Amino acid sequence: MTAGRRLKHWGWGYEDQAPTAAQLAEAGAGIRARFGFGGEARAAVPLEEVEVRPPRLRRPEAFGDLFSDAKYERVSRALGKAYRDIVRGHRGEFEHPPDLVALPRDCSEVETVLAWAEAEGAAVVPFGGGTSVVGGVEARLGDRPAVTMDLRRLDRVVEVDPTSLAARIEAGATGPRLEGQLRERGLTMRCFPQSFEYSTLGGWIATRAGGHFATKETHVDDLVESVRAVTPRGTWESRRLPASGAGPSPDRLLLGSEGILGAITEAWVRVRPRPEWKAAATVRFERFADACEAVREIVQAGLDPANCRLLEAAEAGLTGAGDGTSHLLLLAFESAHHPVDEALRLALDAAASHAGAGDAPRFTGDGGARSGGAAESWRGAFLAAPYLRDTFVCCGVLSETFETAITWDRLEELHATVVDTARRAVAEISGAPREGRGAPLVTCRFTHAYPDGVAPYFTVLGPAIRGGEVEQWDEIKAAVSAALIDAGGTITHHHAVGRDHRPWYDRQRPAPFAAALRAAKAELDPAAILNPGVLLDP
Amino acid sequence: MTAGRRLKHWGWGYEDQAPTAAQLAEAGAGIRARFGFGGEARAAVPLEEVEVRPPRLRRPEAFGDLFSDAKYERVSRALGKAYRDIVRGHRGEFEHPPDLVALPRDCSEVETVLAWAEAEGAAVVPFGGGTSVVGGVEARLGDRPAVTMDLRRLDRVVEVDPTSLAARIEAGATGPRLEGQLRERGLTMRCFPQSFEYSTLGGWIATRAGGHFATKETHVDDLVESVRAVTPRGTWESRRLPASGAGPSPDRLLLGSEGILGAITEAWVRVRPRPEWKAAATVRFERFADACEAVREIVQAGLDPANCRLLEAAEAGLTGAGDGTSHLLLLAFESAHHPVDEALRLALDAAASHAGAGDAPRFTGDGGARSGGAAESWRGAFLAAPYLRDTFVCCGVLSETFETAITWDRLEELHATVVDTARRAVAEISGAPREGRGAPLVTCRFTHAYPDGVAPYFTVLGPAIRGGEVEQWDEIKAAVSAALIDAGGTITHHHAVGRDHRPWYDRQRPAPFAAALRAAKAELDPAAILNPGVLLDP
Repeated sequence: MTAGRRLKHWGWGYEDQAPTAAQLAEAGAGIRARFGFGGEARAAVPLEEVEVRPPRLRRPEAFGDLFSDAKYERVSRALGKAYRDIVRGHRGEFEHPPDLVALPRDCSEVETVLAWAEAEGAAVVPFGGGTSVVGGVEARLGDRPAVTMDLRRLDRVVEVDPTSLAARIEAGATGPRLEGQLRERGLTMRCFPQSFEYSTLGGWIATRAGGHFATKETHVDDLVESVRAVTPRGTWESRRLPASGAGPSPDRLLLGSEGILGAITEAWVRVRPRPEWKAAATVRFERFADACEAVREIVQAGLDPANCRLLEAAEAGLTGAGDGTSHLLLLAFESAHHPVDEALRLALDAAASHAGAGDAPRFTGDGGARSGGAAESWRGAFLAAPYLRDTFVCCGVLSETFETAITWDRLEELHATVVDTARRAVAEISGAPREGRGAPLVTCRFTHAYPDGVAPYFTVLGPAIRGGEVEQWDEIKAAVSAALIDAGGTITHHHAVGRDHRPWYDRQRPAPFAAALRAAKAELDPAAILNPGVLLDP
Repeated sequence: MTAGRRLKHWGWGYEDQAPTAAQLAEAGAGIRARFGFGGEARAAVPLEEVEVRPPRLRRPEAFGDLFSDAKYERVSRALGKAYRDIVRGHRGEFEHPPDLVALPRDCSEVETVLAWAEAEGAAVVPFGGGTSVVGGVEARLGDRPAVTMDLRRLDRVVEVDPTSLAARIEAGATGPRLEGQLRERGLTMRCFPQSFEYSTLGGWIATRAGGHFATKETHVDDLVESVRAVTPRGTWESRRLPASGAGPSPDRLLLGSEGILGAITEAWVRVRPRPEWKAAATVRFERFADACEAVREIVQAGLDPANCRLLEAAEAGLTGAGDGTSHLLLLAFESAHHPVDEALRLALDAAASHAGAGDAPRFTGDGGARSGGAAESWRGAFLAAPYLRDTFVCCGVLSETFETAITWDRLEELHATVVDTARRAVAEISGAPREGRGAPLVTCRFTHAYPDGVAPYFTVLGPAIRGGEVEQWDEIKAAVSAALIDAGGTITHHHAVGRDHRPWYDRQRPAPFAAALRAAKAELDPAAILNPGVLLDP
């Protein structure tokens, strides 16, 4: 947290980044003109007017400023950053504020928080950047009091091993905090989820965040060398190793555990020198099926581009990466060691063999030019999207995303079914036309690609039902989630499970694995204080 | 199992591959001349003379030939393939033969075996190729009767998805069985552990086997798309996905579970077209430290060679890959899609910058020549090593290996400490000179390399204490294992834990993870029938 600058108590970013009333009104008119829905701007309920339940836990005095019961601290951590969270925050509805917020400075204070909460019969919600889009940080616990434990004070790069290219980093470090400290050593972690500005290393590990690389090292899982977590039954610290075959991987049980087994306090992660050579190009396709085949050939060839994002024509138009007439494949290679022109040439050849028309490749390194064009437009839109969503919410626009992964053989069917289900559900539930002006938009991009499949990511825009946004979206979400699971996909490729994905996650995971996870949790957290309701029933 | 051909009841390979008495005597003389120890050839106790405890379980008649109590079936599955196993088998000592051997043909028969064993109070040892080198298949269970469940009848490639490049394969398929079936489709899994000829897909998954690739996809873990296992509390079947972020990975909990959570019956694995282009070269180094730096640069550059095996001079001499005067780096790249000459050139440039002298690169594809030279010599020695070990055992030579992984920053110290500890321990415990003629050999190679570290693999040859081989090796093993763990390494990079690595595995793994694993097992296997004593106390 930058000193003197506060995060908004609802929505994305800092308080000083909120649009003015005039800006909102202008945005609303623009939205209406472009989409044919939304437009009437309503300001968010200011913090002063928010009514929040009094804390049901008395702040312990013995621990100095470790615990806080201040309204801002509680309200700003009451919700995640899903559409259904933004909507409620905008309306000033914070149904499940934590009773206390804990801000530990070190592992010992993390232990203190867990021990105190266990003694009080309270639950603990580990909290990183609070950017969960799946209800992962909302303490929906009925009568049970809750402490949200925000780890942002643990934000240091503690140690760097330049020989092995690894760094020991505290879990509360946000993307910019850890990259800033690594940059001083000429290094980078290159884990850039969309939430990068606010989310934290611990949050990435707990939710198996998707990062910078579209191929190979797609998840933070691949960058983790060892993890340290505090559990109610002691410290879980794995050995720092490049690889091991000694039993099931302890790290892989913490990766994706979403705070239910322990609070991650630090990790050794793999870092690398900053890339010096880059080669990038954009390829246009008339037919989506051709573009899919091009991506498949590129990843099955083992070319492993850093960027290999395929944007459907409509998505390309929406984000300004293209004019909406062609599907766009954004390709980029990078290396800190050697030029990557040859890899790009091979990928462009592969794309051309599937009727892809590449633009002039852009190279950096050895005095070449910076990358730009569609990729830069897209990157800008990608990072701005969460800010823009706040504006959409103010202006009565339903704006949400969902994502999955599927093997190549089932992609066409999943894509067709899911897009059709989503378009139908959004139109019907929102009372909007299915086609023409005012029709909802459902667009798709591929965020990550694998030799055996791909991760499709869907964006939904439609008219919000004012006052009924949560129910409206929940109904749409249920329809598309069922379609994803029925078509063989995963309920999430990199958005985690939280509380919102539970019904479909329960269908997806093997029953004996659920039983094993439940038993593991009961062993490590017998009082069930850690993030109850996430992954397992509370 | 090839019809009409039986595996040896002890040692490596088929009965018809055993050397004759004359061949053994000649080998013994050669060994003595070369190493200055060993030499006196003793034949193995033939099966007819082996005395084996009568079965403590009565073979159930109701299930046809599902269960066997035949002597050969029991004896040939009583031990794994560690040195301490080969020695005991050679002597005709089979202390813990399974009481029955089960040979299920399908999942339903696997369920039958588990249910029957649970009702009888018997343990079940899942068995693939029986090539465990860590006591993973030896039923050291005191008075508790045991059924060894051999899955070799489940050996089919059931389904191939040529679009996603994946195949559904039954767990009992050996390397040659599954590769033979894939070859008919122009595909290959390219998982080639040293035990490839006999070990099985299910065994690879249960033990996180190391495969063909020296970089990136080093373990079978990376090739697994989904797994099916039968547990005493139902079937564990994960969804077939290229990737997922939905909770901790179920597959990663089965990978390395060594049969204690369930019996793996099949898996979807990633396959690929057979490589068409290959580029290989051998690089000589005078100084081992330079060779390490070369490997580090190559992997940190992201060049990802398929082969990147560094042989210490002595190891190169031992295997015939070199004359023993230089350290050798075997480099190879391969692709089914495009020439890889450029990648090899970059790797050779990196090696040259660390004083490595490369020989003339060899290329295949586009009409080029086959690879050969040191790499071929080494590969031949690699696959022959387990056969040769039987001969060593007959001739009174201690012959064993151990391995680890370590980050680059701690490699030099680990290597020095471990080699010194091993040389000292072997000499002292064996009563051999530390240097000169008759001194034991301890040599090292790197089997796998990572951006953040490497997997050193050690080979030990020395004079066996006839009749006391097991105690002799156990004492040496304890010394080197303690050295590995004290130096920060893992007790195993790809040999699994079994029963033999337990004391050091227990030191390595986080205590809360051990508790979680114990709880998961108790939930899935409440009667503790599955491979008791492996990974956890029985």
